[in-house]
Amino acid sequence: MKVNGKNFESVWFKKGKLKLIDQTLLPFQFKIFESKNSVQTAKAINSMIVRGAPAIGATGAFGLAQAALEFNGKDFGKFCKHVSNAKKILAATRPTAKDLFTGLDFVEKSIAEIVEKEFANNPNSELVSFAKKASLNAAQNYSNSIVKNCEAIGNFGNKLVPKNAKILNHCNAGWLATVDWGTALSPIYKAKRSGKKVFVFVDETRPRLQGAQLTAWELEQEKIPHAIIADNAAGYFLNKKEIDLCIVGADRIALNGDFANKIGTYEKAVLAKENGIPFYVAAPLTTFDLDCDSGKKIPIEERNEEEVLIAKGINERGKFEKIRIANPKSSALNPAFDVTPAKYVSGIITEKGIISARESSVKKIFKK
Amino acid sequence: MKVNGKNFESVWFKKGKLKLIDQTLLPFQFKIFESKNSVQTAKAINSMIVRGAPAIGATGAFGLAQAALEFNGKDFGKFCKHVSNAKKILAATRPTAKDLFTGLDFVEKSIAEIVEKEFANNPNSELVSFAKKASLNAAQNYSNSIVKNCEAIGNFGNKLVPKNAKILNHCNAGWLATVDWGTALSPIYKAKRSGKKVFVFVDETRPRLQGAQLTAWELEQEKIPHAIIADNAAGYFLNKKEIDLCIVGADRIALNGDFANKIGTYEKAVLAKENGIPFYVAAPLTTFDLDCDSGKKIPIEERNEEEVLIAKGINERGKFEKIRIANPKSSALNPAFDVTPAKYVSGIITEKGIISARESSVKKIFKK
Repeated sequence: MKVNGKNFESVWFKKGKLKLIDQTLLPFQFKIFESKNSVQTAKAINSMIVRGAPAIGATGAFGLAQAALEFNGKDFGKFCKHVSNAKKILAATRPTAKDLFTGLDFVEKSIAEIVEKEFANNPNSELVSFAKKASLNAAQNYSNSIVKNCEAIGNFGNKLVPKNAKILNHCNAGWLATVDWGTALSPIYKAKRSGKKVFVFVDETRPRLQGAQLTAWELEQEKIPHAIIADNAAGYFLNKKEIDLCIVGADRIALNGDFANKIGTYEKAVLAKENGIPFYVAAPLTTFDLDCDSGKKIPIEERNEEEVLIAKGINERGKFEKIRIANPKSSALNPAFDVTPAKYVSGIITEKGIISARESSVKKIFKK
Repeated sequence: MKVNGKNFESVWFKKGKLKLIDQTLLPFQFKIFESKNSVQTAKAINSMIVRGAPAIGATGAFGLAQAALEFNGKDFGKFCKHVSNAKKILAATRPTAKDLFTGLDFVEKSIAEIVEKEFANNPNSELVSFAKKASLNAAQNYSNSIVKNCEAIGNFGNKLVPKNAKILNHCNAGWLATVDWGTALSPIYKAKRSGKKVFVFVDETRPRLQGAQLTAWELEQEKIPHAIIADNAAGYFLNKKEIDLCIVGADRIALNGDFANKIGTYEKAVLAKENGIPFYVAAPLTTFDLDCDSGKKIPIEERNEEEVLIAKGINERGKFEKIRIANPKSSALNPAFDVTPAKYVSGIITEKGIISARESSVKKIFKK
């Protein structure tokens, strides 16, 4: 998508270096972080330079390819051990990120498969250099598949967007989080590019303000009209019928269509239903957890209370600053996610089409 | 209520001076602002040193008494003109605050009534000095009546509070806003003092954070256990049945029981109903607007977008600071209030008892 008029992905590999849009500085500064090796990449994941599960997965995949490329020597056994160690280091950067493991596994398995085939065909092949090339191809393929799925979500989702649509969005499920296109924002980008006028109500998404900071920045860069609102105001605009539909992302979708997403999603879903306004979830099939039969079984992460008590931004002198915004002697409770029951969901937009949020539909789409 | 263990009101008159707890500095600094004359009092209202409709009304009443006391001379005609001018200046400080006019009118009418009676009984009486004394008495009576009503609301509301209650609160309808006791918080203070254990979930109340800043400060000073939550998290806790009841204040209540209150109140009311949790409004009868037959007719104020885009607090060096928290090139929409339809309201707690939110009950309580 566009940044200052030029096309960017949030994660890409070029001339031996992994490049990441530094999301810790957005929306106040736009800088590219360059990682020269797998250790730097691990640190970048750990320090949140990259965020968003799919983008983290792609970063992990490229990080593992970097590790492969870094290996000196021709002993394939040692190479495998080296890659396996690097995988452990990368996996430990975000121990709860399922997509990270998926990306790492994908690269490791791709190496194994290709090398096995090559060995069967040509036992005298120099396997290490073969494996190195395979690792980078695998990482790139993994990243491309994320983007392809997100673009497909955009195309399906675009069909739901009427002309002159006013759309409510919560948190950031945009292209920064998914290398390109995004999930919840992809239908909006596709609608704009297909000539429709759209206006986005951007929930600021307290406590971490991903809406006010990242979604608003993405939309501004793509020249899509929008307004940030306090999360408290979403109900007001839904009740006034100033919103035509809601689209949100998901962190995990259970077999029965219940889904976990950023705290506040449940509130907006209930309010949308109460006011008769469609509420869609946009997510690739990798977000479904078929082993989890109900949202009731999804554990909710409690995060540090400082996210509620302290605000971060830039001061009047343009410097990054943290300020205490709450009563100094009070504490906070900070559940980071909530679970929205399937009954509030109008449909789930996937890369294979739009399905209803119920077990039979979920099972069917996985058989397609 | 308590501040650092001592009893305070948010507005009081002592030895010729009007004292106000400076609410622009809370919760970070506790300072008393002293106004020596009616002009200083007008400035204090204008600069938001005092906030909360009832507290503003009391401040206006005392400000008009100050104006009366300031008059030099014995000509009662000139005195009346002087007071009338001061009333205009005070009324202009917050042209939308109904309670301010009520307070000013109360003092002006009290002076007129008492002076008229005195003149009838004793035509040679020195009317100006008589009127001066009457003005201060009237202001004090007005302030006392606010406190008395709030305390009655607390006593009625306390009956709704179970043992070990967990209560959700939105915005600040505490004693800072009403001289003493508060409206929505009064039942909580009464419950605590009657020996019940209570825990308060404090909605931070974006964009202006009256919950995180003022309600949390009040509760901390009264040693009432509480936790600040992002407004987005209220639905999560309601859904988990971790909240027994919700109590909020009101800015205006229509004849049919619909009411306007701080933005986000509507969201929490819908979520409470969806989860079967009682949702009460606490307000004195002066908050009812019997000329307004439905909430649909209540106009909603749009406030400056900076309230959403900029956060205020104290930095790591303990200094007041403003920071930009949103994408610098995005704008915001900032409706300050919303209207909650009566169907979401379990009851309205008034100084005359708890009534249901419907026209017949509202009419009945005004005939009591």
